Amino acid sequence: MTIGKVVGTVVCTQKDPGLVGKKMLVVQPLDIEKIVDKGNVFVSIDGVGAGIGDIVMVVTGGSARLAEGFSKVPVDNTIIAIVDTIEVKGTVVLNNKEGT
Amino acid sequence: MTIGKVVGTVVCTQKDPGLVGKKMLVVQPLDIEKIVDKGNVFVSIDGVGAGIGDIVMVVTGGSARLAEGFSKVPVDNTIIAIVDTIEVKGTVVLNNKEGT
Amino acid sequence: MTIGKVVGTVVCTQKDPGLVGKKMLVVQPLDIEKIVDKGNVFVSIDGVGAGIGDIVMVVTGGSARLAEGFSKVPVDNTIIAIVDTIEVKGTVVLNNKEGT
Amino acid sequence: MTIGKVVGTVVCTQKDPGLVGKKMLVVQPLDIEKIVDKGNVFVSIDGVGAGIGDIVMVVTGGSARLAEGFSKVPVDNTIIAIVDTIEVKGTVVLNNKEGT
Amino acid sequence: MTIGKVVGTVVCTQKDPGLVGKKMLVVQPLDIEKIVDKGNVFVSIDGVGAGIGDIVMVVTGGSARLAEGFSKVPVDNTIIAIVDTIEVKGTVVLNNKEGT
Repeated sequence: MTIGKVVGTVVCTQKDPGLVGKKMLVVQPLDIEKIVDKGNVFVSIDGVGAGIGDIVMVVTGGSARLAEGFSKVPVDNTIIAIVDTIEVKGTVVLNNKEGT
Repeated sequence: MTIGKVVGTVVCTQKDPGLVGKKMLVVQPLDIEKIVDKGNVFVSIDGVGAGIGDIVMVVTGGSARLAEGFSKVPVDNTIIAIVDTIEVKGTVVLNNKEGT
Repeated sequence: MTIGKVVGTVVCTQKDPGLVGKKMLVVQPLDIEKIVDKGNVFVSIDGVGAGIGDIVMVVTGGSARLAEGFSKVPVDNTIIAIVDTIEVKGTVVLNNKEGT
Repeated sequence: MTIGKVVGTVVCTQKDPGLVGKKMLVVQPLDIEKIVDKGNVFVSIDGVGAGIGDIVMVVTGGSARLAEGFSKVPVDNTIIAIVDTIEVKGTVVLNNKEGT
Repeated sequence: MTIGKVVGTVVCTQKDPGLVGKKMLVVQPLDIEKIVDKGNVFVSIDGVGAGIGDIVMVVTGGSARLAEGFSKVPVDNTIIAIVDTIEVKGTVVLNNKEGT
């Protein structure tokens, strides 16, 4: 799974029925070890109530439709969690429990 | 999902039965933050009535067949929405509601 | 989907039962806008009666098994159409209807 | 499949129901021939009781949900084995049976 | 599908039940036109009785589980054939029928 930051929104009126009622967000992927921007933003569908500024975990590919309520959604990536903490190689690189 | 612009068409007479009646379009992927061309064009199947010049959202991979009417179509990417607006990092980068 | 040209064949005697009776072809991917070679050749399975020299459309990934007769074939790309014409950005880049 | 080393952990409170009770780990991919770091770390879900420091095998993509107990988990890669030995081109490059 | 050469083995004691009894092999991908090493080795599961030194065809992604006996195996690539001959652009680049 990928870690990213929600940085934007997409609005579409004319769309596949499976997308109706789904929130489309723009996600900036992050370097997990440094929690800095890395790579190009992409469009993801929110599955957990995420919003602008949240650090999120994204599932990519066919499994994106295994998120709850997504079994009939034509989606290739879904936001499946809001991240609290990440520890890599002995260092806490993200700690959102205490507002870091 | 990817954002792109419809820039062309493909016509095939001899094809898999699942493709009969489907519109095959050439899509130019876009840099979402700048709405400029980025990367190589590819062939997508229209699922929402898109046409030349439209800015569209494309789903890639196995989920492309979850678009309505695509369950038996051998397709690895499908146009699932026509994009109205995109806002990234506080800036409205695309606004097709008002003809921008 | 990818556009390519059939440039070769692969023969295997010892193979998965799902491949028996299937024609394995080598495909050279093409730059769609210029119809010139781009990238490395790969092996695809024929789903439409294609042969050496044909310009074909290839579906990649899990959807490759949605081609007619491929539901039990372990295949990650299938030739699903022979291309007649491609028009990109206002230019007809391929026209095989009239022998171009 | 990919070979990697478990180097960290991710904790999420707000998440898809399918992730509840699953251990989320950060994996550093390895060059299989030299068993040295190669490429960027990613988040994987543990399917075999792996922990920090273990050399593991990871399955990527839609098949990640075929691991035991993962059929309803929105996951694009799963740790499916802890590696004992790897032999490549006549050399034993990893031997964890004897504590190498 | 990819063409590669079997160059090694992986042994895991602690693993997903779906992997029990499966042979895990290290595969060196090959440039199909020149039959020389190209890219990094990866781990594949044998589906056809392949062994060290064999030139094999590998299916990648979700379809890897369509190989016979793999429907419950968490696998993202499977060896599905041993290659006899490859002809590309008019040249026989591999001929293992006659021991080339």
